[in-house]
Amino acid sequence: MVNQKRTVFYLSDRTGITAETLGHSLLTQFDGIEWNTINVPFLDDIEKAHNVTRQINEIAECEDHKPLVFSTLLNPEFLEIIKQANCRVFDFFEAFICPIEEELRLPFARMAGRSHGLQHHLSYFKRIAAINYVLAHDDGVNPKSFEEADIVLIGVSRSGKTPTCLYLGLQYGIAAANYPLTQDDMQVMQLPKVLQSARAKLFGLTLSAAQLHFIRQERRPNSTYASLAQCQHEIQWQESLFRQYNIPHLDTTRISIEEISATILNRCGLRRQLYG
Amino acid sequence: MVNQKRTVFYLSDRTGITAETLGHSLLTQFDGIEWNTINVPFLDDIEKAHNVTRQINEIAECEDHKPLVFSTLLNPEFLEIIKQANCRVFDFFEAFICPIEEELRLPFARMAGRSHGLQHHLSYFKRIAAINYVLAHDDGVNPKSFEEADIVLIGVSRSGKTPTCLYLGLQYGIAAANYPLTQDDMQVMQLPKVLQSARAKLFGLTLSAAQLHFIRQERRPNSTYASLAQCQHEIQWQESLFRQYNIPHLDTTRISIEEISATILNRCGLRRQLYG
Repeated sequence: MVNQKRTVFYLSDRTGITAETLGHSLLTQFDGIEWNTINVPFLDDIEKAHNVTRQINEIAECEDHKPLVFSTLLNPEFLEIIKQANCRVFDFFEAFICPIEEELRLPFARMAGRSHGLQHHLSYFKRIAAINYVLAHDDGVNPKSFEEADIVLIGVSRSGKTPTCLYLGLQYGIAAANYPLTQDDMQVMQLPKVLQSARAKLFGLTLSAAQLHFIRQERRPNSTYASLAQCQHEIQWQESLFRQYNIPHLDTTRISIEEISATILNRCGLRRQLYG
Repeated sequence: MVNQKRTVFYLSDRTGITAETLGHSLLTQFDGIEWNTINVPFLDDIEKAHNVTRQINEIAECEDHKPLVFSTLLNPEFLEIIKQANCRVFDFFEAFICPIEEELRLPFARMAGRSHGLQHHLSYFKRIAAINYVLAHDDGVNPKSFEEADIVLIGVSRSGKTPTCLYLGLQYGIAAANYPLTQDDMQVMQLPKVLQSARAKLFGLTLSAAQLHFIRQERRPNSTYASLAQCQHEIQWQESLFRQYNIPHLDTTRISIEEISATILNRCGLRRQLYG
């Protein structure tokens, strides 16, 4: 139920990812508001600051509510200009930098683009290598080089292996392979041979048969492949397999790619380094 | 130059992505510190809270410095326990929620998992569809369905098209295709035919010849493909092509995938909705 319409601005000297991530997590805690979101990344000259100020004032007048402004602006001059507008500014650096400076006994650098920029070439190349690894080891391709994998996700078709591997590679630099469990494997209650040497790296993705049915219907409507009976059969089979071989696994029915990935890293004790 | 070694904890009821994004953007503003990072996602029972408290106290004693703690904990009881430890706590919600409640005249929901959880099924399916689109339209595959693309990235081999498309799909739900410019195209100073109907969606990625040479050397050392002369030739050619056809383009030599993606969205006026 929508009770209010409000506008939120995300202002940043660079990508705006930090401002948006932080503002989004605050605003999702409030129900009943329809948000009009305006992103202003790369706010790097005074004219842009004045333009945004005008836009804020126009919206404030039109909506009869102050827009909320989440800022990671590092340029104090631009931030001052924005603060003159008819809005409520939440500045992330202002809120935290002083007590951190005090604790570390160091001044902060006030350099834009450090959080999502190219600070560390080596770890950046590790990330690109991880993405390439994921693409080269999707859907059971190249199982011979699973020994280089950090993790190998397994599960039946459409259980969410590929998006999760991509997220692990892109956001965390994890070399994530995946291997589909198929009809052929189901003939025998046995782990596919090619996975046996990667036993310690296996992680299973499962979900409710109803959800799997829904997802497969989108792909191949009214096929045997998508039928609820087939989905029930495959899910039952794979969950028995996971238990039989003591493979850690996760029910992904109600959780997002971010939650699946964070859970896998946590349960497998993989070192995480957030890039995004 | 490293002057201090310090420990930072990221505590969260759920994925920890918000806590880590916040802390990372603040801490990258301080030079000369080597950080020992400890992530504690899914801090969802009192025993875990006590364990973390013990761990913080041990490190504080051992390092002779208070660890920094960035928290997005929504459970006030757990947060109180952590605050008893010998550390400096920066609580994200505490810092901002009160003034936002006041401005919106609404209480906050105090529900964990809203930011990176599965709140909106429809937009989530749009995101998965975008990822599938990216995978099905990588490296010039299926150019006939470029009409469904939000954007089509073009550039020579190893210019960063694939990681950028994946990021656009995963993080923003953008249907991003890419098409490689090759030797065959270089014979004629002309846009490949298959791209002509997608003219309005084209965006070029370029980089310095030296960087391209470096990247290709990793892939095929000492090949003609990787030689500096070949890289110079290809970059020169593609930049002329971009200018000739007035195709917006970006030099990615010194910028990250996040910055490339944010710039593309900004310059092409694509609506952005951050998922990650």
